[in-house]
Amino acid sequence: MLIDLTWTIEEHWRYGKFHREKIQSFENGNLWQVTGFYLGSHWFSHMDFPRHIGIQYPDSNEFPLDYYNGNASVLNLTKKSVENYGFTSEDLERACKGRDKLEKILLLRSDWGLECSHMEKEFWTKAPYLTDDAIDWLRHRGDINAIAFDFPQDYSIRLLIERPVGPEEQKTHSLLLKNNILLIEYLSNFNLIPLDTCEFFCLPLKLDHIDGCPVRAVAKV
Amino acid sequence: MLIDLTWTIEEHWRYGKFHREKIQSFENGNLWQVTGFYLGSHWFSHMDFPRHIGIQYPDSNEFPLDYYNGNASVLNLTKKSVENYGFTSEDLERACKGRDKLEKILLLRSDWGLECSHMEKEFWTKAPYLTDDAIDWLRHRGDINAIAFDFPQDYSIRLLIERPVGPEEQKTHSLLLKNNILLIEYLSNFNLIPLDTCEFFCLPLKLDHIDGCPVRAVAKV
Repeated sequence: MLIDLTWTIEEHWRYGKFHREKIQSFENGNLWQVTGFYLGSHWFSHMDFPRHIGIQYPDSNEFPLDYYNGNASVLNLTKKSVENYGFTSEDLERACKGRDKLEKILLLRSDWGLECSHMEKEFWTKAPYLTDDAIDWLRHRGDINAIAFDFPQDYSIRLLIERPVGPEEQKTHSLLLKNNILLIEYLSNFNLIPLDTCEFFCLPLKLDHIDGCPVRAVAKV
Repeated sequence: MLIDLTWTIEEHWRYGKFHREKIQSFENGNLWQVTGFYLGSHWFSHMDFPRHIGIQYPDSNEFPLDYYNGNASVLNLTKKSVENYGFTSEDLERACKGRDKLEKILLLRSDWGLECSHMEKEFWTKAPYLTDDAIDWLRHRGDINAIAFDFPQDYSIRLLIERPVGPEEQKTHSLLLKNNILLIEYLSNFNLIPLDTCEFFCLPLKLDHIDGCPVRAVAKV
């Protein structure tokens, strides 16, 4: 069975330039219904390739699908409330206890989306995030290909609503992407995965040499 | 290992309105690279939901992912040349020989893309196709959820270059979609699947209530 981990692509205040339109429709006398849509490479559930943060870093073509698809470890970071909570390396260590090994893909589960809908501004402004030492812990493991999140994982993502924020202020971006650890952002439903590992599929559109892309992500259980 | 069955989304004469642009770029002084793109729901490797052919038929929301993902049977229809060849029910029968059962998802393999690149007009104008009796054979099996093709499967798809062609002239569309047999069109690399079955993943973007969508499709082998 596949568990869908993906946000619906629909009207959303954060992605105001998303639009869809009928290219052909029955009401207009066409013989078919065909829809056109405009999307950005980092809107809704999506993945980041390192090119997102610098022209010198690799784009989608450098990463085969097997790099970021396959067995994944689900790290349960849930608490009674995770509002504005900074996850530390100790939180990550605790979530790893009792395992023989970590898979090359990690799903960091906070369940923040159950506490606050991603349709609300507060999903960003009151989000939990990774502290610098948690990011260092992830970076120095040396055996991680991709990390998927169900929360806006950098503290400063909340500031984007007010002002430009570069990669240097978003340390999962500057520290992890530079080390070819791909980021899979804004997923959901990690709470529906019954075990602490799953088979994870994350398929972006096959746009050539791109910096990121909306994905459909699923867990096979 | 995943085998990518998807066409690259790139400039293509048939999809002239496809475009991509830099929303943010380093050369423009931005801190990130972000790409915008415009796509149609039936461009490049994509799937069709029944809504494509009539307002009364169901759209994407009516079909759970498990309906069109899972074990698939690969039917080998290859010949020395398949140019302009109409596959018959006998061809389908022959490709099924020696199997205990057919899976609910079929991949119809012609290898037409190895004979003629999909970048050329001839990929359409000289394509192999399914004859009416082959379509009837597929329709009357009663246990097929989705069919994926590596060739433009209706004879009249070639006429679309010159004039409007409705669903009634494209019988895989009118006969199969109406029976909730989904069509997954313009895939490739079926020749790289080593066995006559595989695990098949076909993930469209999660656009709400849509008539079709570009997909990333893979075989796990």
